[in-house]
Amino acid sequence: MTAVSHPLESFHAVIPAGGAGTRLWPLSRASRPKFLLDLDGSGRSLIQQTWDRLHDLIPADRIHVVTGRAHAQAIREQLPDLTGLIVEPSPRDSMPAIGLAAAVIGAQHPGAIIGSFAADHVIDDQVSFAEAIGQAVAVARTGLVTTIGITPTEASTAFGYIESGERLGVEGAGSARAIRSFVEKPDAATAADYVASGSYSWNGGMFVTRTDVLLGHLERLQPGLHAGLMTIASAWTGGDRQAVLDSTWPALTKIAIDHAVAEPVSLEGGMAVVPGEFTWDDVGDFAALQDIGAASSPETIWVDAGGLAIAEDGTTIAVVGLDDVVVVRTSDALLVVARDSAQSVKDVVAELKRRGRDDLV
Amino acid sequence: MTAVSHPLESFHAVIPAGGAGTRLWPLSRASRPKFLLDLDGSGRSLIQQTWDRLHDLIPADRIHVVTGRAHAQAIREQLPDLTGLIVEPSPRDSMPAIGLAAAVIGAQHPGAIIGSFAADHVIDDQVSFAEAIGQAVAVARTGLVTTIGITPTEASTAFGYIESGERLGVEGAGSARAIRSFVEKPDAATAADYVASGSYSWNGGMFVTRTDVLLGHLERLQPGLHAGLMTIASAWTGGDRQAVLDSTWPALTKIAIDHAVAEPVSLEGGMAVVPGEFTWDDVGDFAALQDIGAASSPETIWVDAGGLAIAEDGTTIAVVGLDDVVVVRTSDALLVVARDSAQSVKDVVAELKRRGRDDLV
Repeated sequence: MTAVSHPLESFHAVIPAGGAGTRLWPLSRASRPKFLLDLDGSGRSLIQQTWDRLHDLIPADRIHVVTGRAHAQAIREQLPDLTGLIVEPSPRDSMPAIGLAAAVIGAQHPGAIIGSFAADHVIDDQVSFAEAIGQAVAVARTGLVTTIGITPTEASTAFGYIESGERLGVEGAGSARAIRSFVEKPDAATAADYVASGSYSWNGGMFVTRTDVLLGHLERLQPGLHAGLMTIASAWTGGDRQAVLDSTWPALTKIAIDHAVAEPVSLEGGMAVVPGEFTWDDVGDFAALQDIGAASSPETIWVDAGGLAIAEDGTTIAVVGLDDVVVVRTSDALLVVARDSAQSVKDVVAELKRRGRDDLV
Repeated sequence: MTAVSHPLESFHAVIPAGGAGTRLWPLSRASRPKFLLDLDGSGRSLIQQTWDRLHDLIPADRIHVVTGRAHAQAIREQLPDLTGLIVEPSPRDSMPAIGLAAAVIGAQHPGAIIGSFAADHVIDDQVSFAEAIGQAVAVARTGLVTTIGITPTEASTAFGYIESGERLGVEGAGSARAIRSFVEKPDAATAADYVASGSYSWNGGMFVTRTDVLLGHLERLQPGLHAGLMTIASAWTGGDRQAVLDSTWPALTKIAIDHAVAEPVSLEGGMAVVPGEFTWDDVGDFAALQDIGAASSPETIWVDAGGLAIAEDGTTIAVVGLDDVVVVRTSDALLVVARDSAQSVKDVVAELKRRGRDDLV
């Protein structure tokens, strides 16, 4: 290892900003995705909060956002100091998005380390977040693809889990361990076992890696995708960036970074995890939205009732005789959902699509 | 008894049209009461349905509506053939309203029989309704104040009951019985006993009486109210009708016909009941509204859910994971209520008043 003058030297953040968040319909829409919304009433959208969290650690010119054409302008407006906006011609899932960022950043900053952070997650406790990033960057310098495993606060069945193995003994990252495996969202009993064991953490989708390490794995595991990304990256600073992007991008393999790199590399012993002791939530549904402290509209009238009631259009909501209910009213739609059924809101969006109501999704 | 050429000769109908129906908020409002609404999707408001039912039996000029100033114009628009509109200066409950109609009609048509029918009830089966009216008019001619007792279809706790006594043997009204007593809304066990006994019927608030008989009872039981009504009636066809009405009306005793006449006269043996075998509902709350067949907005999406969902503003409602829920969206308000709690909707209106939101009540 070469000595570094600052733990986060050459560390760049990548924020993939995609996904509509169909479980938060009708607040989130294809045209107004979750990351653009101020869901917790903080005054900052989720992507602005993500930006704030990273900008506290590194300068603005080392924060990059990858998004689709539809949301580029909204992101520019919400993040006026952003210089590194990468616009995808079409959604190809997270691996092409993060891979392109790695290729572009790596070409300009050889040896750079990137960390990817979803645009629409909520994190509380900046000190612990910074601590985890510091450790993850230290581990990533050693050539391991590193993730931050969120220390579980409950036996959630809503998240994937990371099983950690032996301690790695990396300097500056005393808590880092090898990853034994990634596991999908478990059932309740399995989740309880995971949490009781102390060896499992939530997969928050935060990957920290040297660009050359990530691209090396890609070249080996997804050579076609790697080649396409390198073609685009080599044209990035030239006059034909857009032409190359438009001709190359649509043929790239549509795949998540979890399946393309994280899972296979973990089986080869090439992945590490550092603990994240902060509060984290992916705000996956309205139950989660309530958990992160979203407040009901102040005008709401509850009679023998409780839950979350949001009137985006400012009208008065009255709820009578129902507990644990979530009510969301927008100018053009209305959702009433039992908190326990919050995950099924995606079925509403599916039904709207089936009915051809693209104006509402 | 004098012979009559037609069973309904000299029979006039009086429709008291008052009451906002706070349990049907936000559909019904002070400015848009229940009787003006097409609640069952039939294309006719409740007062129009009441009109249709009576006009099927008697000519338009024998149907009278008593209402407040706020709704006079809306009623004229909904009932273009109405000639007998009596406008109260202020609400004084049902006895002054029906008493004034009796005094005015009796002055113009000596010996007339009036029947009062709430503007906001739903009745199905016109043949049975006509049969009951025919019997009630026959009994009323004998000098009894006569009501129609609805044959119960369940042990409802939402209605008052009428206990019937001995058979009266009136010609043309073979089913008529004396009334033993009126009883308030019972608890569930008492209601079950009532229905099992076969001697109790629902009090639908339909009173049929000779005007002279009703006014005679009033003169004896509520002499001040009687005097005031006669003063107004004597000025009715002159030029100072409005002046006399305005000066006399506010001092009239505010009292329901049930308490002023029906209950005391029943104890004296002066009241009769004829059975109403038709389907009847006072549409007292959203559970009743659902029972009378009100339909959900066709765009509603139900996911593991069921109930009644009305979007008056035409927007799409989605309900997820909730059974027996009622959702009502208007342009300015939203109600979500468990069917079992439908009666508590009045508490929402009370709370809105407490908050000074008169614009919403």
